[in-house]
Amino acid sequence: MEQRVSLITLGVGDVRRARAFYERLGWQGQEVEETVFFQTGGIVLVLWGRDKLARDCGITEGQAGGFSGVALAHNVRSKAAVDDVIAAAERAGATVTRPPAETFYGGYAGVFTDLDGHAWEIAHNPGFPLAADGSITVPGLSNP
Amino acid sequence: MEQRVSLITLGVGDVRRARAFYERLGWQGQEVEETVFFQTGGIVLVLWGRDKLARDCGITEGQAGGFSGVALAHNVRSKAAVDDVIAAAERAGATVTRPPAETFYGGYAGVFTDLDGHAWEIAHNPGFPLAADGSITVPGLSNP
Repeated sequence: MEQRVSLITLGVGDVRRARAFYERLGWQGQEVEETVFFQTGGIVLVLWGRDKLARDCGITEGQAGGFSGVALAHNVRSKAAVDDVIAAAERAGATVTRPPAETFYGGYAGVFTDLDGHAWEIAHNPGFPLAADGSITVPGLSNP
Repeated sequence: MEQRVSLITLGVGDVRRARAFYERLGWQGQEVEETVFFQTGGIVLVLWGRDKLARDCGITEGQAGGFSGVALAHNVRSKAAVDDVIAAAERAGATVTRPPAETFYGGYAGVFTDLDGHAWEIAHNPGFPLAADGSITVPGLSNP
């Protein structure tokens, strides 16, 4: 298995509602058969019905809600951008679960959960350089 | 909020055990303070203690296990590669929750869950071209 993630699919309770949330944040998606695709660099983020996703994965759905055990991070270029994105997310209906603050690694970050409880950390991390195209690199890690 | 995912962090019960699983699949990680980083193209996949991740996100942990509501996809270049990766994952200790089979979209895919229940779909999808660098593009979607 090569070291690669191709798509991230977030299971959501209501695809239309979830799409509207991400579009309020400025994202542009494309819907195909009740599935919404967002191209993000070389990977694709997908919104799909949580029940369909579970069934499609051959997984019996447990109780909904609670912590998904997965967090996505969106890194930005300044502390001010962290505040801006967290504020925009809150206006868009997100729950701010950790207000922006200095982090132990010398950065600045906050966390919100989207309408289905998926966690997004918005971070300014001077230690992880952000390229012009938005891709990040962890120093010392090679790209196999 | 720009249209970008920077990191994907999987909450795991035992970081060492989880790292060993991904390394059995051929991935190469780097551990920093009980956190394992895998560079995957322009994003980074991270393994971190699930309890720490929940706390770090300001989220009260619900019951562990069950479906996380998130699925990651790893796309490959042929049907045979799907079979190979699913078989390798099973040998590495994964649970195959959906054996490889033709899909409704004209592709071929299977799904396994890792040791903490995180779902990975391994897919050959002729409709989503895979570039030489492993990045994928959904036709008709622009990269904002």
